[in-house]
Amino acid sequence: MVRVVIVGQGYVASIFAVGLERIKRGDLGYYGVPLANELPIKVEDIQIVGSYDVDKTKIGLPLYEIVQRYWKGDVPETLQEVFVRKGVHLRSLRNLPIEAVGLEDEMSLRDAIEHLVSEWKELKPDVIVNVPTTEAFVPFEDLEKLEKAIKEDDRDRLTATQVYAYAAAQYAKEVGGAAFVNAIPTLIANDPAFVELAKESNLVIFGDDGATGATPLTADVLAHLAQRNRHVRDIAQFNIGGNTDFLALTDKERNRSKEYTKSSVVEDILGYNAPHFIKPTGFLEPLGDKKFIAMHIEYVSFNGAIDELVITGRINDSPALAGLLVDLVRLGKIAVDRKEFGTVYEVNAFYMKNPGPKEAKNLPRIIAYEKMRQWAGLKPRYL
Amino acid sequence: MVRVVIVGQGYVASIFAVGLERIKRGDLGYYGVPLANELPIKVEDIQIVGSYDVDKTKIGLPLYEIVQRYWKGDVPETLQEVFVRKGVHLRSLRNLPIEAVGLEDEMSLRDAIEHLVSEWKELKPDVIVNVPTTEAFVPFEDLEKLEKAIKEDDRDRLTATQVYAYAAAQYAKEVGGAAFVNAIPTLIANDPAFVELAKESNLVIFGDDGATGATPLTADVLAHLAQRNRHVRDIAQFNIGGNTDFLALTDKERNRSKEYTKSSVVEDILGYNAPHFIKPTGFLEPLGDKKFIAMHIEYVSFNGAIDELVITGRINDSPALAGLLVDLVRLGKIAVDRKEFGTVYEVNAFYMKNPGPKEAKNLPRIIAYEKMRQWAGLKPRYL
Amino acid sequence: MVRVVIVGQGYVASIFAVGLERIKRGDLGYYGVPLANELPIKVEDIQIVGSYDVDKTKIGLPLYEIVQRYWKGDVPETLQEVFVRKGVHLRSLRNLPIEAVGLEDEMSLRDAIEHLVSEWKELKPDVIVNVPTTEAFVPFEDLEKLEKAIKEDDRDRLTATQVYAYAAAQYAKEVGGAAFVNAIPTLIANDPAFVELAKESNLVIFGDDGATGATPLTADVLAHLAQRNRHVRDIAQFNIGGNTDFLALTDKERNRSKEYTKSSVVEDILGYNAPHFIKPTGFLEPLGDKKFIAMHIEYVSFNGAIDELVITGRINDSPALAGLLVDLVRLGKIAVDRKEFGTVYEVNAFYMKNPGPKEAKNLPRIIAYEKMRQWAGLKPRYL
Amino acid sequence: MVRVVIVGQGYVASIFAVGLERIKRGDLGYYGVPLANELPIKVEDIQIVGSYDVDKTKIGLPLYEIVQRYWKGDVPETLQEVFVRKGVHLRSLRNLPIEAVGLEDEMSLRDAIEHLVSEWKELKPDVIVNVPTTEAFVPFEDLEKLEKAIKEDDRDRLTATQVYAYAAAQYAKEVGGAAFVNAIPTLIANDPAFVELAKESNLVIFGDDGATGATPLTADVLAHLAQRNRHVRDIAQFNIGGNTDFLALTDKERNRSKEYTKSSVVEDILGYNAPHFIKPTGFLEPLGDKKFIAMHIEYVSFNGAIDELVITGRINDSPALAGLLVDLVRLGKIAVDRKEFGTVYEVNAFYMKNPGPKEAKNLPRIIAYEKMRQWAGLKPRYL
Ligand SMILES: NC(=O)c1ccc[n+]([C@@H]2O[C@H](COP(=O)([O-])OP(=O)(O)OC[C@H]3O[C@@H](n4cnc5c(N)ncnc54)[C@H](O)[C@@H]3O)[C@@H](O)[C@H]2O)c1
Ligand SMILES: NC(=O)c1ccc[n+]([C@@H]2O[C@H](COP(=O)([O-])OP(=O)(O)OC[C@H]3O[C@@H](n4cnc5c(N)ncnc54)[C@H](O)[C@@H]3O)[C@@H](O)[C@H]2O)c1
Ligand SMILES: NC(=O)c1ccc[n+]([C@@H]2O[C@H](COP(=O)([O-])OP(=O)(O)OC[C@H]3O[C@@H](n4cnc5c(N)ncnc54)[C@H](O)[C@@H]3O)[C@@H](O)[C@H]2O)c1
Ligand SMILES: NC(=O)c1ccc[n+]([C@@H]2O[C@H](COP(=O)([O-])OP(=O)(O)OC[C@H]3O[C@@H](n4cnc5c(N)ncnc54)[C@H](O)[C@@H]3O)[C@@H](O)[C@H]2O)c1
Ligand SMILES: [Mg+2]
Ligand SMILES: [Mg+2]
Ligand SMILES: [Mg+2]
Ligand SMILES: [Mg+2]
Repeated sequence: MVRVVIVGQGYVASIFAVGLERIKRGDLGYYGVPLANELPIKVEDIQIVGSYDVDKTKIGLPLYEIVQRYWKGDVPETLQEVFVRKGVHLRSLRNLPIEAVGLEDEMSLRDAIEHLVSEWKELKPDVIVNVPTTEAFVPFEDLEKLEKAIKEDDRDRLTATQVYAYAAAQYAKEVGGAAFVNAIPTLIANDPAFVELAKESNLVIFGDDGATGATPLTADVLAHLAQRNRHVRDIAQFNIGGNTDFLALTDKERNRSKEYTKSSVVEDILGYNAPHFIKPTGFLEPLGDKKFIAMHIEYVSFNGAIDELVITGRINDSPALAGLLVDLVRLGKIAVDRKEFGTVYEVNAFYMKNPGPKEAKNLPRIIAYEKMRQWAGLKPRYL
Repeated sequence: MVRVVIVGQGYVASIFAVGLERIKRGDLGYYGVPLANELPIKVEDIQIVGSYDVDKTKIGLPLYEIVQRYWKGDVPETLQEVFVRKGVHLRSLRNLPIEAVGLEDEMSLRDAIEHLVSEWKELKPDVIVNVPTTEAFVPFEDLEKLEKAIKEDDRDRLTATQVYAYAAAQYAKEVGGAAFVNAIPTLIANDPAFVELAKESNLVIFGDDGATGATPLTADVLAHLAQRNRHVRDIAQFNIGGNTDFLALTDKERNRSKEYTKSSVVEDILGYNAPHFIKPTGFLEPLGDKKFIAMHIEYVSFNGAIDELVITGRINDSPALAGLLVDLVRLGKIAVDRKEFGTVYEVNAFYMKNPGPKEAKNLPRIIAYEKMRQWAGLKPRYL
Repeated sequence: MVRVVIVGQGYVASIFAVGLERIKRGDLGYYGVPLANELPIKVEDIQIVGSYDVDKTKIGLPLYEIVQRYWKGDVPETLQEVFVRKGVHLRSLRNLPIEAVGLEDEMSLRDAIEHLVSEWKELKPDVIVNVPTTEAFVPFEDLEKLEKAIKEDDRDRLTATQVYAYAAAQYAKEVGGAAFVNAIPTLIANDPAFVELAKESNLVIFGDDGATGATPLTADVLAHLAQRNRHVRDIAQFNIGGNTDFLALTDKERNRSKEYTKSSVVEDILGYNAPHFIKPTGFLEPLGDKKFIAMHIEYVSFNGAIDELVITGRINDSPALAGLLVDLVRLGKIAVDRKEFGTVYEVNAFYMKNPGPKEAKNLPRIIAYEKMRQWAGLKPRYL
Repeated sequence: MVRVVIVGQGYVASIFAVGLERIKRGDLGYYGVPLANELPIKVEDIQIVGSYDVDKTKIGLPLYEIVQRYWKGDVPETLQEVFVRKGVHLRSLRNLPIEAVGLEDEMSLRDAIEHLVSEWKELKPDVIVNVPTTEAFVPFEDLEKLEKAIKEDDRDRLTATQVYAYAAAQYAKEVGGAAFVNAIPTLIANDPAFVELAKESNLVIFGDDGATGATPLTADVLAHLAQRNRHVRDIAQFNIGGNTDFLALTDKERNRSKEYTKSSVVEDILGYNAPHFIKPTGFLEPLGDKKFIAMHIEYVSFNGAIDELVITGRINDSPALAGLLVDLVRLGKIAVDRKEFGTVYEVNAFYMKNPGPKEAKNLPRIIAYEKMRQWAGLKPRYL
C-alpha cells in the first residue's frame, strides 16, 4: 500500500486520480505507466488520501467533482471520499484568471507549515506529489538561507513548492520517512539546500520537472544521431497548448525561472552545445490539453552531406505526466523503505527533465531506463 | 592497414571512396562514421585495392572517373589508381536501363569463382564489401544445396551476391582469413548455409542490409515509446528517392525478396506486432540520392489518451551507408585478427537492418551501440 | 424538396445520411457543406427515399441500423424508414471479405435495369447518388458500344456504375428529367458515351470522383506556387487509411482503372508536367476512416534558390465527400430544373477530382469555387 | 527601362541585384518572378542606379563586393558600377551588432531629405525600393503631424522609412512622378498621412511588407477550407531563421510595431476570427536565410468530424522577396506612367502582407493574382 497526498489538484493530478481508479475498476490496462505492474508494489496498491489546492472554487470539493472538469466519462465513485484542502499559494496564481486563497492569508508561513505537518500526520502519506502551477522561483543553494527565509516569513523569496518541500522534510523527520515527488520546474532535487535538508530529515526527493513531451524524445533522437557521429548543426523545437499550464507559461515572471533550469540536454547528450532554440512557445486555447509540438534538426552525415529531420506531434500533456506519477509514488515508497534519503539520480535520470542532484547530467532516456530498472530491482529489458 | 575490395561501384561505393580519400586529404572530419577515429585501426589506414562492377560503362575505368558521376567537387587524385574489374551479374541489372556484362558470359560460375579468387589472391583484400544492386533472391538455408547449385552452374537459382560470398569463402580458406561485409538485403549472415560455410572457411560475415534511413530511427523511437509503456496502435512509414537503388526497387521481381527479409523490428522492439505499413514506396528521379521519408505513429498513453507523432525528413541515402562501411571494414579486420569466423551479432545488431544470424533479434540501436563498443574494446559512451 | 436515391450504402453514404438528419434535428451547423444554406433549395429539403447495396448483410435493413456500423452516437429515428434494396454487383466486391448478391444473379442485365427503373419510378428520385466500392473499369467512349454491351449482357465488360448510369438515363428519359451524381473514379462524366446518352435522355451527370483529400489541396498549393512562378521540381504524395475503400484499393484489378483516370492535376495547374508520385499508398486498419496524408513539394525560387514544403494531415475521409454530396444533390436538382442535360463543367470543376467532360481541365479549386457559385446564381465570395 | 534606387543593401537587396544581373547574363530563367517576362517592360529593362545603407562597413563599396557576403558564385561584373551611399538611420540598427552611420549625424532631417532629393535628381530613379532593417514605428495617420515631425527634426518620432518615403514624395513632386515600393512592415501604404502626401506629390506607393513566406500560403490554405465551409478551430504558425532580419525581430522595441500591423488575414479570409497564434518565433543562426516554418490547422468537417493539417517547410527568405521586387519595380513604373498616384490596392493585394490602403482587406492570393493581372493589362491565367 502507498498512501499519497497530492499538491495541486489540476489537470495532471486529476488524470492521475481518475486513471488510477479506472485501472482499479478494470477499465484500463497499464498503458502510459513505464513499469506497468512489474514492481512488487502494485498499481492497485496506490491510494490517494489527501489533496491540496489554492483555487477558491476547488477547496472543499471531493475529487469526484473536480475530475469532471478535466475528463468526460464515468468517474469512479471512490473519488467521492477525498476532499481538497487549503494549501499555501505565495503568488502561484498571480496573473491567472483564478482566485487564490491560502493558509498564509491567516497565519505565518511557519504556522502554515505546522498546520500541514499536523494534517499529514493524520493522513499518513508515504509520498507527497507536488504538481501545482509552474512558479517563478530562485533556488536557495544554501540550507541556512532557506531556514532563514522560513523563519523570517519571507513571502517574496519563497515559493509554494519550496514551502511544501520544507514541510515534507519536517513531516518525514517526525514520522521516520517520506518521499516528496517534485514534478514541476522549481529546483528542489537540484537545489543543494533541499537535498541536504532531505538527508537530515529522512526525506526522499525525486525531481525536478516530469520528463514528458518533446524533451525526452529529443534526447533519444539526439543520442541516435550522436551514436552515428552525425554532427548536429541546429535544433529548433516549438510547442503550443491550451491548458492552464501553457497559459501560466505566458507570464513573464514565470519565465524568469528558466534562468535556473535552462536545459542542458543538448550538450549532455551530444558532447557539444549545438545551436538550439528550445522553448515553450505559446498558448492557444482550443488545443486544450493536447499540445502541438514541432521540431527541426539539421545534421552533417558522411562526406559532408546535410540531412534534415522534422518531428511534429499531437500529445496529451497531462496523461503523460500522470502515467509517470504512477511509477514515481511506488518508487518513492521503495526508496523510503530502503532509507535512500536525499535524492536518487537513477530515478530522476529517467523520469525528470532536469534530474537532480545539481551536478548530474542528462542521459539518453533509453539508457536511463535500463539503469532505473536495475535500481528498482527489475531485470533489464534490452541490455 | 585494411585492404578493401568493393563489389558494386555505384552511389554508396563511390561516396565511400571519395569520402575516405577526402578524410585522408584533411578536407573532412569523421562525421557520419559512428566510431570516428576511436578504433586502433585508423580511418586513414583503410585502402581500396580493387573494385568490381557489371555495368558495361564502368568496367575498365578508374574510380576517379566513376566517382564524378555521383559527387561534384575536387576528387582526390589517389582514386586514379584503382580500376573497375568485371564481376558476375546473374540478373542483377534486369529491367534496369543499364547494359550488363559479366564473367559468366564467357565461362561457368565455378570458373568465374576461381577467376575472382585468383584476382583477390593478387589484390590481397582483408575485407570484401558487397554493395551491388538489390537482388531478387531465395536463401539456401542448407550448405549442401548451395554447393550443388554452384556445381551445377544453376544461374536461375543463384544471385551474384551468393556467388561473391561463396568466392570470398574460398579465398578466405586459401589465405587464412578474410571478411565479407554484406550491406545489401540478400540474406547471407542470415542464411545458415553461408554462416556454416564461413565457419569452415575462416570467413567473417557481417550482414545483412546496412541499417540506414528510417528503420533504425524507427527502432529507437519505438523503444522510447515501449519504455514508457505507451501502446502503439499503428505505424505507417513511407520513403521515396531518386537514385538507381530506388529505381531497382520498383521492380516486382526484386520485391519478391521481401518475403525473406520482412522486417520484424516492430515486434522485436515492442514485444507485440503492432499493425504497420513499412515499405519503400516509390521512385521520383529529381529527389536524387536525398530521399524523402514520412512516418506516422499513433499510440495510447495513460488513461486511454491517444497521441500521434509524425516524422518527416530529407536524408542522403548513400553517405549514410558509406559512413557505416568505414567502421565495418575496420571491424571486419579486427574480427579476422581475432579469428571470430562465422558472423558477429554484436556488430550486426548495430550496423545491419536485418542482423544475422537467422535467429537473432533487433535491439534498440542505442543499446546495440553500447554492446558493439564493448565488443570492439571501447569504453561505453553512456552506460 | 430533393428526393435522393443512394447507390452503395457504405461509409460515405452513411455519414451523408446521418449528418443530414442531424442537421435537420438541429444537432449540427452546416460545416463541411461548401454552400452551407445559401442555395434556394435548403439542406433541410433533402430527403433520402431509397438506397441500394449488394452486401448480403445490408440488404433489407433500415439505414438506421447500417449507419451505426460507421457512426457512434444518437442516430435519428427518421432513418428507420428507408430500407436497403438489392442492386447489381458485377465484380464490385471481388477480393473483398464481403459476400455479394445482386439482381443479375437471377436475371439478365437488361432485366435488372428495367427492375431498377421501375423501382425508381415508384421512389421518384430527383437525384441518384453513386458511391459504391471503387471499380476496375474500361470506359466506353462510344455510345453504340455501350448499348451493345448492355444488349449482349456483357458482364465482363460492364461495371455496376456503368449499369446504374445507364438505368438512370432510362429513368430520366421516362420521367422527363433526373440527375446522376457519380462520386467514384469510374469514368461517366468523362466518358463521351455517357454524356451523349445523358443529353438524349434528359439526364444530368455530375462526375467523376468526389474531390476530397489531398488532391484538391495539392491543386491549390500548386496554383499558389504557379502564381509566383516558382518552378516545381517534384511532388510526392502518400496517403494511407483503414476504411473499406482503402482496402479495396489494394486490389490490383481496381488499380488497372488508373490507366484511365491518371491525374492531370499537376499539368493542368502548372502548365508543365512536373515529375510526381501521387498514389493511394496503403491500407492500415487501425487508422479507420481518418486517413494519414503526407506530401512533399520541392521548387525553385528566385536566383535559383530551392525551397521545400511538407504537408501532413489526419483527414476524415467519408465526411469530406458526404459534405460535398449535400451540395451536389441540390445542384443536381437545379440543373434538372434548368434542363442543362449532359454534364456541367462548372459544377464538376469544383466538386470532382476528374471533372468531366473528357476534354475539360483542372482549375485551381479556389477559382473553380467562384465559377461554380456564379453558375449556381450566388454572389462570388472573394472576386 | 526602369531606373531603380535601393534603400537597405542587405540580403534581399543583394539577391535582387545579383539575380537580376544573372538573368540579364542568361544564367537563370524567370523563376520566382510572378509575372516572368509577360509585362511590356522586360526584366532586362531594370537597372539599379543607386543604393543606400547605414552600415559603416558597406558605405562606399560597390554592390559587387557586398553581394558576395550573401551569395557564393560568379557575381556579374556589372555590379562593379553601383556604389553604396549613406542614408539616414534613426535607430534602424539599434541593438544589432552593426555600427550605424547616417546623414543625420551631421545635419538636420530636413537637410538630409534635401540631400537625398538632390542625389536622386541626379540618379533619376523611376522607383525607390525600401528594404532596410525592420523598424519600431508609430504610424502618423495625419499628414499635418508628419509635416510637423519633419519640421521639428523629431528623431524620436520618425523612422528612417518614414523619412525616405517623405523624401520620395518631394522628389516625385519635383520631377513629375516616381514610385516608392515599401517592402517592410512600417506602415506607409497603410498610413493615410503618406497616401494623402503621395496623391499631392505624384508619388505611387506600393506597400506594406512583402508577402512572402508562410502568410500568403496560410491565406490560400484558409481560403481552401473556407470554400468547403470547414470551420477552423485553431491555427498555430511558427517560423525561425538565421538571417539578420530574424535577429532584428528578437528586439522587443521592434516588436512593438506589431500593434499596428497585427495580421487580420485570418478574419479577412474566413469571415470570423478563428483563434490563432501567428508570430515570428526566433533566431537560430545556422539556419541562415533558409527559414524553418511550421503550421498546424485544426478544423471541423461534415458531421462534426475533426481534421488536422500540418505544414512544415524550409524556405529561402530573401529570394522570395527579391523575386517579387522584380515585378514591383516594373509595376511601379507602369503606375507612374498611368499617373495612378497614391496607392494601388490591386498591386498591394497580391504582393503585400498588409495591403494598403488602411481600410483594405486581405484576399486569397489566388484571387488577388488574377485581379492584379487584370490591372496590369494581362490576360487572366485561370479565370
Ligand atoms: N506533461 C505535463 O503536463 C507536465 C510535465 C512536466 C511538468 N508539469 C508540471 O505540472 C504542473 C501541473 O500541471 P497541470 O497541467 O496539472 O496544471 P494545472 O494548471 O491544470 O493545475 C495546477 C493546479 O495547481 C493548483 N495550484 C496552484 N498553486 C498552488 C499552490 N500553491 N498550492 C496548491 N495548489 C496550487 C492550481 O489551482 C491548479 O489546480 C505544472 O507546474 C507543470 O509545469 C506538467
Ligand atoms: N543507404 C543506402 O544507400 C543503403 C542502405 C542499405 C543497403 N543499401 C544497398 O546498397 C546497394 C547499393 O546501393 P547504391 O545506392 O550504391 O546503388 P547503385 O545502383 O548506385 O549501385 C549499385 C552498383 O552495383 C553494380 N552492380 C549491379 N550488379 C552487380 C553485380 N552483380 N556485380 C557487381 N556490381 C554490380 C551496379 O552496376 C552499380 O554500379 C543496394 O543493394 C542497396 O539496397 C543501400
Ligand atoms: N472521401 C471519400 O471517402 C471519397 C472521395 C472520393 C471518392 N470516394 C469513393 O466513394 C466510394 C465509396 O466510398 P466508401 O468509403 O463509402 O466505401 P465503402 O466501402 O464504405 O462503401 C461502399 C459501399 O458500396 C457497396 N457496394 C459495392 N458494390 C456495389 C454495387 N455494385 N452496388 C451497390 N452497392 C455496392 C458496398 O457494399 C459498400 O456498402 C468509393 O468508390 C470511393 O472511391 C470516396
Ligand atoms: N522574405 C523576406 O526576406 C522579407 C519579406 C518581407 C519583408 N522583408 C523585409 O525586408 C527588409 C530587409 O530584409 P533583409 O533580409 O534584406 O535584411 P538585412 O538585415 O539583410 O538587410 C537590411 C539592410 O538594411 C540596412 N539598413 C538598416 N537601416 C537602414 C537605414 N535606415 N537606411 C538604409 N539602410 C539601412 C542594413 O544595414 C542592411 O544592410 C526587412 O525589413 C524585412 O522585414 C523581408
Ligand atoms: Mg500540463
Ligand atoms: Mg542507396
Ligand atoms: Mg472513402
Ligand atoms: Mg529577409
